[in-house]
Amino acid sequence: MATRHQTISFLSDYGTADEFVGVVKSVIRAIAPHAAVIDISHEVPAHDVRAGGLTLARAAQYLAPGVVLAVVDPGVGTDRRPVAIEVGDGESVLIGPDNGLLAPAVAMVGGATRAVELAEAAYRLPAPGPTFDGRDVFAPAAAHLCAGVALDDLGPEIDTAGLRPGIMALSRPEGDGIAAEVLWVDRFGNAQLNVDPDDLAAYGERVELRAGAGPVRSARRARTFADIGPGEVGLIVDSYGLATIVLDQRSAADELGIGAGDAVTLLPADDDMGDPTPTTVSTPVRLGQRGGPT
Amino acid sequence: MATRHQTISFLSDYGTADEFVGVVKSVIRAIAPHAAVIDISHEVPAHDVRAGGLTLARAAQYLAPGVVLAVVDPGVGTDRRPVAIEVGDGESVLIGPDNGLLAPAVAMVGGATRAVELAEAAYRLPAPGPTFDGRDVFAPAAAHLCAGVALDDLGPEIDTAGLRPGIMALSRPEGDGIAAEVLWVDRFGNAQLNVDPDDLAAYGERVELRAGAGPVRSARRARTFADIGPGEVGLIVDSYGLATIVLDQRSAADELGIGAGDAVTLLPADDDMGDPTPTTVSTPVRLGQRGGPT
Amino acid sequence: MATRHQTISFLSDYGTADEFVGVVKSVIRAIAPHAAVIDISHEVPAHDVRAGGLTLARAAQYLAPGVVLAVVDPGVGTDRRPVAIEVGDGESVLIGPDNGLLAPAVAMVGGATRAVELAEAAYRLPAPGPTFDGRDVFAPAAAHLCAGVALDDLGPEIDTAGLRPGIMALSRPEGDGIAAEVLWVDRFGNAQLNVDPDDLAAYGERVELRAGAGPVRSARRARTFADIGPGEVGLIVDSYGLATIVLDQRSAADELGIGAGDAVTLLPADDDMGDPTPTTVSTPVRLGQRGGPT
Repeated sequence: MATRHQTISFLSDYGTADEFVGVVKSVIRAIAPHAAVIDISHEVPAHDVRAGGLTLARAAQYLAPGVVLAVVDPGVGTDRRPVAIEVGDGESVLIGPDNGLLAPAVAMVGGATRAVELAEAAYRLPAPGPTFDGRDVFAPAAAHLCAGVALDDLGPEIDTAGLRPGIMALSRPEGDGIAAEVLWVDRFGNAQLNVDPDDLAAYGERVELRAGAGPVRSARRARTFADIGPGEVGLIVDSYGLATIVLDQRSAADELGIGAGDAVTLLPADDDMGDPTPTTVSTPVRLGQRGGPT
Repeated sequence: MATRHQTISFLSDYGTADEFVGVVKSVIRAIAPHAAVIDISHEVPAHDVRAGGLTLARAAQYLAPGVVLAVVDPGVGTDRRPVAIEVGDGESVLIGPDNGLLAPAVAMVGGATRAVELAEAAYRLPAPGPTFDGRDVFAPAAAHLCAGVALDDLGPEIDTAGLRPGIMALSRPEGDGIAAEVLWVDRFGNAQLNVDPDDLAAYGERVELRAGAGPVRSARRARTFADIGPGEVGLIVDSYGLATIVLDQRSAADELGIGAGDAVTLLPADDDMGDPTPTTVSTPVRLGQRGGPT
Repeated sequence: MATRHQTISFLSDYGTADEFVGVVKSVIRAIAPHAAVIDISHEVPAHDVRAGGLTLARAAQYLAPGVVLAVVDPGVGTDRRPVAIEVGDGESVLIGPDNGLLAPAVAMVGGATRAVELAEAAYRLPAPGPTFDGRDVFAPAAAHLCAGVALDDLGPEIDTAGLRPGIMALSRPEGDGIAAEVLWVDRFGNAQLNVDPDDLAAYGERVELRAGAGPVRSARRARTFADIGPGEVGLIVDSYGLATIVLDQRSAADELGIGAGDAVTLLPADDDMGDPTPTTVSTPVRLGQRGGPT
């Protein structure tokens, strides 16, 4: 007996200027009128599978159980597979192109327990052209799952080990410091790094940041935005538990000239370097628990 | 007995920075709390009735049965009529100003079967000023229809033949070619033309594009984005069944310097012209069925 | 017995490019799946408490009874209090930071009847970092209220007189004229002033506008956009009952070089000044009723 899901969480790079998002929701409404659709974001940069995958992964642990519909799909119309990936033994199903977009979120919630290719024509819409699989393939599959269609009715089961992985840059030690990458710049200009605050345990209150050709900047570790003085660069633990470069009420990304994907090196500040036993007692940072709410 | 509609599909040029869309939905919620509102788009360029009408027409065949609420209304407060247009003998009702905005969508779904002017004061909100009919006239009408008020209670019936038509440019033969117009540039920079792919049946794989003062470009007909090489201009059948100028993962509109409403001339490419019996067998285009899913 | 609210009206400065809004809605969905969320706007300029407060106040009288969730919160993580403010003896509850954001809306609907600080940990999510109270504090509170939790279970009652007021600029007489402020520039470039049209009763058809270093402009009072000639500046009563500077189908704010918060002085035009008994009979303005629909 298939679960009758109640919620579809929807992410895409469709933007909201065109009718794409509305049409997808209309298709869902016709098939599964009881399902609520929650927009995660539709302003993923066009064709940016990496950014879409990270956005979905950040949201993943908070999403309502049900169906996740994600479409950032530069290969639409090619032989890349449209897939549905079950997680949590059926608690949720992620639907989208098999191009790495879904992989970080799938990993975040414990990995795939089953997957199918969306090959069954009965659960697609006839398409005037092959460029809008969100409407013609993915939305109908999401809606039919909500309406009670079983996962394996959507198409043949595929090996979850053969799903395309996401490319996630890991930070690594480099000399005395950490070679990191900007994962994400949010609306406020905060620059999230792929750095676990625990990796900064031996650092003092100040951390040196080297990014691109810009000057070396000194960041002060702090607990919250308002702890950072005017003009000062801060390094806080963000709401996802990662080290993040911030300014108070201004854009750190603009100030430092950095964007998503850029390399940033973190080094202990000189004054700490001169101290043979760098202390962590003085740091005002309260390191957050990685992982989410229960 | 009036139908109790369940869905309101909503399009406007209100944008989402101001509270306009939220206020319209709040007005609907107070009158018809059971109705779901699906946003088609609120980023129609300000006052652009043509663009709004085309957006609504593209979406029309996919919309859930019910009420369509559309507001792009530069004449708000004047004597242009606020109207409700029934289609499909009551399956759906389109509500908005009678300024041509609704006409393309009405035509797309088979034409008006009845119409009324929204004159009944009992189904309006009292208005502090005459500039927000979306809130004061159109939203209440849409919501009251969902709550079970009959169409002809909203105001006097009017002649559907007297409704203001939309202005839709048709492509036409011009010399050896086709004089066309860009109907729409989507978020990805794809430029949809008012050209049925069937009209290109006698063309070869390459089509010459002349637009504005720019150089003549050669476009290759293809099935999907990924079939188009780097730097190459493609001509595909888009998801609505129309010929569309595209690049792979880049904006064709930017590359060619064209926008909505611009004229584009399509001509058979020289190599085809030299061929006395231009063949269509070699074309990789699979022409889509015009018309929508069932 | 607590009210089981059905609707959450949601405003923030989160933007829609990131997943913030979607995550807040997902948190709500998990706690109160029956609640409908209506977006007022999420494009309040980042950290702009004044603009957010005005947007909420404009929307307030139209919002469905229930919960209002508003987050523009530059002091997140500091000791500014998270609060829930009851209005209308429980008809609605406004939730957000106590930084003046909620105050104009609370005043607009008759003032606070009760308030609590959101201190109860049982109704918060555990937070990896202290920077996303929308997700971790405010959304859970809003959802639990909808699910039937009583207001005073969310935390200790606080004195409503101690809530932080909003800063609202009032217009004032200045010489022969009125010293006013631009409250808001909407998507269409209309510039709403903090001026009651009644205060212009003694003015003639023309009003002189002085703004910044720009030239003095003459505005014609009119009822609606279409009454204003090409190139002419108009002064109308907007949909909230306030005097507003407009152009027909163009941006008045761009034309006059003014933005929200800018000072504008209104003076009777010279021809009226020369008239010892300025007449109001000739004015085409029909002054709207201030106040909202019933």
